[in-house]
Amino acid sequence: MTVQKTDVVIIGAGPVGLFAVFECGMVGLNCHVIDALDAIGGQCSALYPEKPIYDIPGFPQISGAGLVEQLELQAAPFKPVYHLGQRVDKLEQPNGVGGGFRLTTSKGNVIEAGAVIIAAGAGAFGPNRPPLANIESFEGQPGGCGVHYLVRRAEDFRARRIVIAGGGDSAVDWALMLHGVAAQIWFVHRRDQFRAAPDSVAKLRALDGYGLDIVVPYQLDALEGGNGVLTGVTVKTLEGQTRSLPADALLAFFGLKSDLGPIAQWGMELDRHHLPVDPANCQTSVPGIFAIGDVATYRGKLKLILTGFAEAASAAHAIYPLLNDGKPLHFEYSTSKGTPGSGVKA
Amino acid sequence: MTVQKTDVVIIGAGPVGLFAVFECGMVGLNCHVIDALDAIGGQCSALYPEKPIYDIPGFPQISGAGLVEQLELQAAPFKPVYHLGQRVDKLEQPNGVGGGFRLTTSKGNVIEAGAVIIAAGAGAFGPNRPPLANIESFEGQPGGCGVHYLVRRAEDFRARRIVIAGGGDSAVDWALMLHGVAAQIWFVHRRDQFRAAPDSVAKLRALDGYGLDIVVPYQLDALEGGNGVLTGVTVKTLEGQTRSLPADALLAFFGLKSDLGPIAQWGMELDRHHLPVDPANCQTSVPGIFAIGDVATYRGKLKLILTGFAEAASAAHAIYPLLNDGKPLHFEYSTSKGTPGSGVKA
Repeated sequence: MTVQKTDVVIIGAGPVGLFAVFECGMVGLNCHVIDALDAIGGQCSALYPEKPIYDIPGFPQISGAGLVEQLELQAAPFKPVYHLGQRVDKLEQPNGVGGGFRLTTSKGNVIEAGAVIIAAGAGAFGPNRPPLANIESFEGQPGGCGVHYLVRRAEDFRARRIVIAGGGDSAVDWALMLHGVAAQIWFVHRRDQFRAAPDSVAKLRALDGYGLDIVVPYQLDALEGGNGVLTGVTVKTLEGQTRSLPADALLAFFGLKSDLGPIAQWGMELDRHHLPVDPANCQTSVPGIFAIGDVATYRGKLKLILTGFAEAASAAHAIYPLLNDGKPLHFEYSTSKGTPGSGVKA
Repeated sequence: MTVQKTDVVIIGAGPVGLFAVFECGMVGLNCHVIDALDAIGGQCSALYPEKPIYDIPGFPQISGAGLVEQLELQAAPFKPVYHLGQRVDKLEQPNGVGGGFRLTTSKGNVIEAGAVIIAAGAGAFGPNRPPLANIESFEGQPGGCGVHYLVRRAEDFRARRIVIAGGGDSAVDWALMLHGVAAQIWFVHRRDQFRAAPDSVAKLRALDGYGLDIVVPYQLDALEGGNGVLTGVTVKTLEGQTRSLPADALLAFFGLKSDLGPIAQWGMELDRHHLPVDPANCQTSVPGIFAIGDVATYRGKLKLILTGFAEAASAAHAIYPLLNDGKPLHFEYSTSKGTPGSGVKA
């Protein structure tokens, strides 16, 4: 069994994990990056590669895939080693607290590191599925038909009648994106208030009646059709009033299931599927393990990609003295690339 | 006297102030932006328009001017009103705490707002000048000759012999940029350790002896030449040993003078030219006044542009309920553009 050694292991290759590679690199730390998905990019690549993102500073608009590509380029000079399609099953501290970490992945890779950054987003994620009879029978069909929880290609929905359900940013942003592509959009939400950015909500309301109908306050009640062919969606008010919306496809955006998986077993304090950290350095309750991005929580936390970027810088700056202050770690960690400017105090 | 009304006044049109316009816009808040300089962009435009910046997420490299251009584009849909070439001389709360603010600029503009965001960077900044005899007589010359505290165009220094003094990021980054442009670079610092990013320091050390000489531990001692013509720089160790470095130009990077100006008189708690804020929302000790970017401080604060971006989001999200929670402000603030989705709770 070969043991690989590095300064920092980053768990999660989403945008925030990728930027952590860059920030660690800037302070001379090498990184290995582990992700359960087969590709880097996390949700940006897996859930909304085409969706435009508007709140990355300096990019009036960029797609999820475009952002990931840029971040990969930015991290590349620091030669991160990616371990994809595997998750971390085991984390040990063979030399006790302060002695570094040994991680074992589901593919049997063993990596030793001085510090760990968890950038796992919502964890090993999957969509929250609405509780509708026979919903599975309408899933897994080509884009444009049946039930979907993400949009891979907007074009798939061209000239289709679609129901979009949900009240958050994903639902609202996709309604705006698919307007003019789909023949008709029914936008269904259980109340006439939306959790999405007010500016986006304003745009949604302006489209009401023009190829897009806001159907509120209604909840999904039943799927119409059979033999895997969706023909419509029945919605219902809390008072029991129903409407039938003719549709080829249902796009349901009820968020992601949070599942930290094995991470929850590593002795860190948890707060409802999140890891509380010290906001001054993003360290969890276990010294040497840091958490950044959506998985990390503290007073006033905003779940924004850009907040995760700043947290990546914070963690990297906190890890540097940890691995350079003369405190001997109890095993050698790789500085084979040379830690540039070692001896330099940040 | 016309009184202009808006939701938020942002003091400082640097990158962080510009991004605050965007973040406020996303939650439906209008902004006026005030800056002492005649152009937007703050230090990015005034001090290093051509210098590549490497640590903006998603941009492997972008110039100061390029970043400002992108941020201006990103803010533009929210129609910020810029008041440039003036500073805020007076800030009052005519209706008491919670009743909003009235600001008066040095050009006599009066603006009323529900909240204030201070994104003033190092304040009304100027360079720290080294204490050398007759230094003023070598200042103000065309690029490439004499004494400078910033580089407007790298090309000005082509084929020149230059002394770069300082040990921080500005000194190191400019040495890297001007290597290969200048004929010779003497890099002078009082010790053999640098406060710059370790990766950049490693690049600097790799160039030592190849058109660039690291001259340590030396301090600037005297300027050689006369009649405004610089011919060299004398440097000296703490033990009194001197060297004469033949040079056409001296670039001195000893940081910026912090001068908050009138801001220091507004009753906010100060900490050595900085404004302590609650890291959860970036509010200063005066309710309704927020501080973001380099001027703001809290435990673990990193002075990075990207940290300021995240703080802008934090402040905007904190201001939104302040101006929308039904607490009546004691004067009307402008929602003439319409606050999209008012009534929507973020």
